[in-house]
Amino acid sequence: MPKNDRLTSDIVISRLPQYLRTLRQFRGSKKTIISKELADILGYTAAQVRKDLSQFGEFGKQGKGYNIEYLIEQLEEILQINRVWKMILIGFGNVGHGILNYYRTPDAGFEIVSVFDIDPELIGREVHGVPIRPMNEAKTFIQDHHIRIALLAVPGSEAQNVANQLIDYGIKGILTYAAQNIVVPEGVQIQYIDPISSLQRITYYL
Amino acid sequence: MPKNDRLTSDIVISRLPQYLRTLRQFRGSKKTIISKELADILGYTAAQVRKDLSQFGEFGKQGKGYNIEYLIEQLEEILQINRVWKMILIGFGNVGHGILNYYRTPDAGFEIVSVFDIDPELIGREVHGVPIRPMNEAKTFIQDHHIRIALLAVPGSEAQNVANQLIDYGIKGILTYAAQNIVVPEGVQIQYIDPISSLQRITYYL
Repeated sequence: MPKNDRLTSDIVISRLPQYLRTLRQFRGSKKTIISKELADILGYTAAQVRKDLSQFGEFGKQGKGYNIEYLIEQLEEILQINRVWKMILIGFGNVGHGILNYYRTPDAGFEIVSVFDIDPELIGREVHGVPIRPMNEAKTFIQDHHIRIALLAVPGSEAQNVANQLIDYGIKGILTYAAQNIVVPEGVQIQYIDPISSLQRITYYL
Repeated sequence: MPKNDRLTSDIVISRLPQYLRTLRQFRGSKKTIISKELADILGYTAAQVRKDLSQFGEFGKQGKGYNIEYLIEQLEEILQINRVWKMILIGFGNVGHGILNYYRTPDAGFEIVSVFDIDPELIGREVHGVPIRPMNEAKTFIQDHHIRIALLAVPGSEAQNVANQLIDYGIKGILTYAAQNIVVPEGVQIQYIDPISSLQRITYYL
């Protein structure tokens, strides 16, 4: 799997989950799909879809399209989601509570195994079978359970500090729900869930 | 404001909210910012930042950087968020409930003014001052209140149908929380909040 120039690659990588999501929708209803169908649904061109996928292998046959099950399998392997990733959730306010509910979806490939918070009223409780532990146990937990991914639902003003701590403890990927930029060192991945930015992209066109 | 080639433009537009978010973080602590600072925080190059912003006007001065307050104001105008957008939320399950909490944040520029659901147990209730109305009142509400934006928190299997209805009633922008592609006609904007895709972008690199 050639990992190209980082900037180009990031954009291509960001499209792979979209291809995967679309393919899964067609799973069961048909066996193959052509690049134009994928392109039309996602608003790209067929050439773009073919170019993106060709960076990772020869998945389709000229004129025959892609075998859906095979391409799903390959994309799952490329994205490393042919396994379940255990994650921790930091912060159990309104947003954190919503996040825990969200990830109860089965077979998403991602599982929250522990929540951490600083509120003594929350610590020790169990929600949907997931225990809420004190923040000062995060280090041991991350290291004992080899956790690599953390979801951040802390106030924006705390986000950078908490992220620094987590990275220090061994976390390699952070998905943050705070609308605050977080600076991470090389080798650590950061992604933002920021509905406000998405809405701003909508209003630009209205 | 020149609206260029649609494909290029979409990518540039998607970066404007990131610039805005970063600028707002510096608001108060300094007056000007150079493209390299913005670039470093967001993981772009300074040239990219300058090129993006120059598509919308002459905001900076060579060697002096950008005036933060002025650039914020300009970006807010470009993104059309120098006003409050009234939105409706469709679906009040776990995800919908989380969304309503999320948008209680003041001055986000977006306000949920009504929830719609089909569950008779929910209809008529009021949550954080926002009424839950029956789905069959959506059409009248959208038209009477000139609503353009809807948040979708319905099951994936319902997403396309509900979207079709809303568009029919006059909705021009949809932010969906269901991990299901939605096909919209020309002139309607669709954005996805899909944490699983973001996590897949993280695991690719792990």
